[in-house]
Amino acid sequence: MKAAIIGASGYTGADLIRILDSHPDIEISAITSRKYLGKSVWKAHPSMRNLKLRFTEYTKDVDADVIFLALPHTASMEKVPELLETGVKVIDLSADFRLKDVKIWEKTYGAKHTAPNLIEKAVYGLPELHREEIKKADFVSGTGCEATAGILALAPLQGKADKVIIDVKVGGSAAGSTGNAGTHYPARAGNVRPYAPVKHRHQEEIKQETGFEVSMTAHAVDLVRGILATCHIPNFSEDVSKLYRDFYKDSPFIRITPKDPKFLPNPKYVVGSNYCDIGVVTDEEHKRTVVFSAIDNLVKGASGQAIQCMNLMFGLKEETGLEALPLYPA
Amino acid sequence: MKAAIIGASGYTGADLIRILDSHPDIEISAITSRKYLGKSVWKAHPSMRNLKLRFTEYTKDVDADVIFLALPHTASMEKVPELLETGVKVIDLSADFRLKDVKIWEKTYGAKHTAPNLIEKAVYGLPELHREEIKKADFVSGTGCEATAGILALAPLQGKADKVIIDVKVGGSAAGSTGNAGTHYPARAGNVRPYAPVKHRHQEEIKQETGFEVSMTAHAVDLVRGILATCHIPNFSEDVSKLYRDFYKDSPFIRITPKDPKFLPNPKYVVGSNYCDIGVVTDEEHKRTVVFSAIDNLVKGASGQAIQCMNLMFGLKEETGLEALPLYPA
Amino acid sequence: MKAAIIGASGYTGADLIRILDSHPDIEISAITSRKYLGKSVWKAHPSMRNLKLRFTEYTKDVDADVIFLALPHTASMEKVPELLETGVKVIDLSADFRLKDVKIWEKTYGAKHTAPNLIEKAVYGLPELHREEIKKADFVSGTGCEATAGILALAPLQGKADKVIIDVKVGGSAAGSTGNAGTHYPARAGNVRPYAPVKHRHQEEIKQETGFEVSMTAHAVDLVRGILATCHIPNFSEDVSKLYRDFYKDSPFIRITPKDPKFLPNPKYVVGSNYCDIGVVTDEEHKRTVVFSAIDNLVKGASGQAIQCMNLMFGLKEETGLEALPLYPA
Amino acid sequence: MKAAIIGASGYTGADLIRILDSHPDIEISAITSRKYLGKSVWKAHPSMRNLKLRFTEYTKDVDADVIFLALPHTASMEKVPELLETGVKVIDLSADFRLKDVKIWEKTYGAKHTAPNLIEKAVYGLPELHREEIKKADFVSGTGCEATAGILALAPLQGKADKVIIDVKVGGSAAGSTGNAGTHYPARAGNVRPYAPVKHRHQEEIKQETGFEVSMTAHAVDLVRGILATCHIPNFSEDVSKLYRDFYKDSPFIRITPKDPKFLPNPKYVVGSNYCDIGVVTDEEHKRTVVFSAIDNLVKGASGQAIQCMNLMFGLKEETGLEALPLYPA
Repeated sequence: MKAAIIGASGYTGADLIRILDSHPDIEISAITSRKYLGKSVWKAHPSMRNLKLRFTEYTKDVDADVIFLALPHTASMEKVPELLETGVKVIDLSADFRLKDVKIWEKTYGAKHTAPNLIEKAVYGLPELHREEIKKADFVSGTGCEATAGILALAPLQGKADKVIIDVKVGGSAAGSTGNAGTHYPARAGNVRPYAPVKHRHQEEIKQETGFEVSMTAHAVDLVRGILATCHIPNFSEDVSKLYRDFYKDSPFIRITPKDPKFLPNPKYVVGSNYCDIGVVTDEEHKRTVVFSAIDNLVKGASGQAIQCMNLMFGLKEETGLEALPLYPA
Repeated sequence: MKAAIIGASGYTGADLIRILDSHPDIEISAITSRKYLGKSVWKAHPSMRNLKLRFTEYTKDVDADVIFLALPHTASMEKVPELLETGVKVIDLSADFRLKDVKIWEKTYGAKHTAPNLIEKAVYGLPELHREEIKKADFVSGTGCEATAGILALAPLQGKADKVIIDVKVGGSAAGSTGNAGTHYPARAGNVRPYAPVKHRHQEEIKQETGFEVSMTAHAVDLVRGILATCHIPNFSEDVSKLYRDFYKDSPFIRITPKDPKFLPNPKYVVGSNYCDIGVVTDEEHKRTVVFSAIDNLVKGASGQAIQCMNLMFGLKEETGLEALPLYPA
Repeated sequence: MKAAIIGASGYTGADLIRILDSHPDIEISAITSRKYLGKSVWKAHPSMRNLKLRFTEYTKDVDADVIFLALPHTASMEKVPELLETGVKVIDLSADFRLKDVKIWEKTYGAKHTAPNLIEKAVYGLPELHREEIKKADFVSGTGCEATAGILALAPLQGKADKVIIDVKVGGSAAGSTGNAGTHYPARAGNVRPYAPVKHRHQEEIKQETGFEVSMTAHAVDLVRGILATCHIPNFSEDVSKLYRDFYKDSPFIRITPKDPKFLPNPKYVVGSNYCDIGVVTDEEHKRTVVFSAIDNLVKGASGQAIQCMNLMFGLKEETGLEALPLYPA
Repeated sequence: MKAAIIGASGYTGADLIRILDSHPDIEISAITSRKYLGKSVWKAHPSMRNLKLRFTEYTKDVDADVIFLALPHTASMEKVPELLETGVKVIDLSADFRLKDVKIWEKTYGAKHTAPNLIEKAVYGLPELHREEIKKADFVSGTGCEATAGILALAPLQGKADKVIIDVKVGGSAAGSTGNAGTHYPARAGNVRPYAPVKHRHQEEIKQETGFEVSMTAHAVDLVRGILATCHIPNFSEDVSKLYRDFYKDSPFIRITPKDPKFLPNPKYVVGSNYCDIGVVTDEEHKRTVVFSAIDNLVKGASGQAIQCMNLMFGLKEETGLEALPLYPA
């Protein structure tokens, strides 16, 4: 089966290549990049020195069974319509088709949506919540990385609680592969920096998928890969361990941790893997429940999850090519 | 003026030595350590190679005008009574005399208090709240590092709000200078680890000083020095910038930051200094206020603050010896 | 095919489990640990939460086709004789059987060798130099991690140069999973610490395998995984790029890098993989050649390489189970 | 006494401000920056929030007794002539006046020197070697940071040995405050990257000051501040401990360490201070001497050293304003 990656010079592109390269059912048929056009893949990704792949130019007629779009927001919606018309299956990792309400999307991303008719067609690419729809889909939208952590932490509580404060800690690779003043190493290392104190874009995604009223604060921490979402749920302190285990019993990438702080979710325990660790602790004294979830933002938060969707779309076993254990310690 | 440090081989001891060594009015007359008895200071603190100081044995009759106790919890309360009897001024950096209610202390620290009669005498050593009492005190209790960050973030709101969720991110030096399995470098580096999901000991200190009902979750992050406390106050979203500026207008170590995420509190901006940066952002949509506070846990969270108290106790200018700007970038 | 790991609670044990778990031809039949006896694997390795494996007790009659020993130095040589007697194939990751001259071994490791008769039988487990012997071997000795980096950097120059100064930078996981005062996170983070200025144990291994007179200095750097060996060869400045490419043309895990500093070996480009990147730069002005080699100390420097040997010993393709690209960026 | 800093928005500018702000004899009369013209100092240096200083425009008639130039290479030599004409004392932190041989300078820096007549006038600003000249100087050139580490490590051996391989490990702040693709945090963190395998510019500076034939290789490591220079001296293995102690007996910022690896130079032990730690280990077996030197690149490698020179130029005690102990652990 052939897969092409459009916009493969960034970090999600790199992780798509990395994982697909070992996927038993996939041959990478094309990777595109304007910046690296004609160059070997290792010019963009020095870790891939010996890989025989070159960046080519984008064309809608790329020879592929499935196309991953790893383009910046608003660039994807320009390409999706013409790709879908060719009959190929498309997985879009941008934010362009994540929100079902186009008005909320336009407000959140500050742009006019140019393919609103395709929004409904796009299945939200979170297998743990939309497995059956994904199996039947031709077009899947990737999920936001902080959103993924938040939604997976909250989904089992839908109907039991409805308000949450999410305090999220995020590694530097979530900012993408292009630098700015804030990502200059001496300025960025050693940070615990609240880069999105309020109004985080992913609030809407979490609300859409869980019904929770979400108030999020995001911090940049000194980590390359990884997200920890600490979800504080006020006025709620039931023991929900069993509920979580049941909810995710058929989801191979969700691991429910013990309450012992030694084993609670920590991005370090999932790095390099498609796992999402979830731990729940109740604070009876203050009637609060804290749900922690940890993911590798580039794997379960982006490329790994997209490949998990691809497996479902093509009738493969959900875990195919994604079974690597986390790299620990790293 | 002579200062002695009891238990000077740990990290708060080291920072007391570091700051007092440059203090214009202080001569360090003794540093004690059982472990390093008779040895040069640099055997414990390799950064102090050329300093002419040796660890000596503890005696209550140490030649000093002020004694800093940098001992583990419960060890301090054994020494404080006999020291105070000699007439020396005492600043205790342990947790032994921080809580005014001995029952809460005993429950929180799981031990019997052996000097309950001295609790009332101990002034809580946070100059921003207890400046006048500290000036008259013979005995000051240091404050908890996470507690310091939390209290300074919340104090101006007393009477306006009363419930808070504090999500705190803490550097590794807060765990002290003695290692355990969890502090082994390969296991600890790259962590965002919720080590105290609920029931953090400092909740009581913050409650005592601010009246807030405090629900805290603490995370170990990949940082040696520094604390960021993110205080989520639900059901409250007034603009309190002016309130904060007014409240701290006579407090030289409090810096109120702009709301712009570029300048919000970040431990990186205070490392090595006695500053506490505080920033307030309101989330009108969700009727939430977020207060961020950043400190260097070993300086404003421990040794610097103790010296700030000492200055007040001896009629010196509050900033003496503490005016160093943060080390940036570091 | 069944594999057992003796002493599986440390970092090399963890990486053996991690890689073998995805190996298409291997079933892990037993993992042993005295410390974690009877416990689930994730108690020692929190990244392996869902893996269904428990630590059992060591017995020489373990049901396995191949046994990996991941024991401390001197503990291995106690077990190897009885294991080999059972007819099982053995790969020992300790230093016990790396040196062919027992006198040098005893001097280097400060101990009496208890199985000197087996030294000759042990094939030095570096496939790039001993591929054919390994294919026929029943007993293979793992290689030192710094030694691996050094030997692979120097082997092509054998006969052309004979003296080298190796300045090696090593990540914290090379020190093992047991902590000490020097590995306490606040003390270890931010280090560039010369922990072995002279007399590094691996000098002898490199000398044995390359003939070079090796003078090594090793530094602990702020990295969990990874080794960079900078090999300074004085009085030699021929262009040897082609020589290197030819020497390693049949070695799938060796990647020769361009001279451009942008792509020279960097542990970051090999983390999580079995690759060894090698780059050569000549300094005509000072008649010096610098050879850089980068590996992941736990993979190509230990567990990955042991599995590469296993593949050869059992007639499998050398790369089987080891084809994962590096995790980048991480 | 008044000091002005020209080009104060970078990292050496920041450290000049930081140190001069606490200097008992100095008032900062002006800081200039084109980029931040008219803005408060904290807009460039967020750690300096409360400092009452604004960036102004450069003018040669700035009101100052001493002017520090913290400009990029080649920009300094445009300004120095007109500044010196006003009679003010000048300390230039750029590379423009470090090399005495203008031909070597032009070859090394790839530019035409526009003020060659002033080269001879510039005293090389390393007090440990040029203390008496600096006392009498009106114009001092700052030193390269890697050069400082190298020269201080080698100077005592002048006449005893003459060839050295310097393997240097450098923190990210040495690359300056302006980012590029290589300093983007996810790409730069976790690096041990040989960015200057041969032909390092500072070789010439070290040669000029010590007479050694210097062959240098420089690596970027995961550290914000700090340099470790490992100087491998082949064919030399005398015990020179006493020699070093004698050579530096009147140099308050040089600390000779024990040979015990526990205490050998480590940038971590000097961060935030003007100290240079030096340790010497001999490798009798291979007739090699290894000299380690560690500095904070922004302090002893740049701004601190410039202020040390200023103290000497104005008859102040050499240590004034520079007595802060290192920040440890940090």
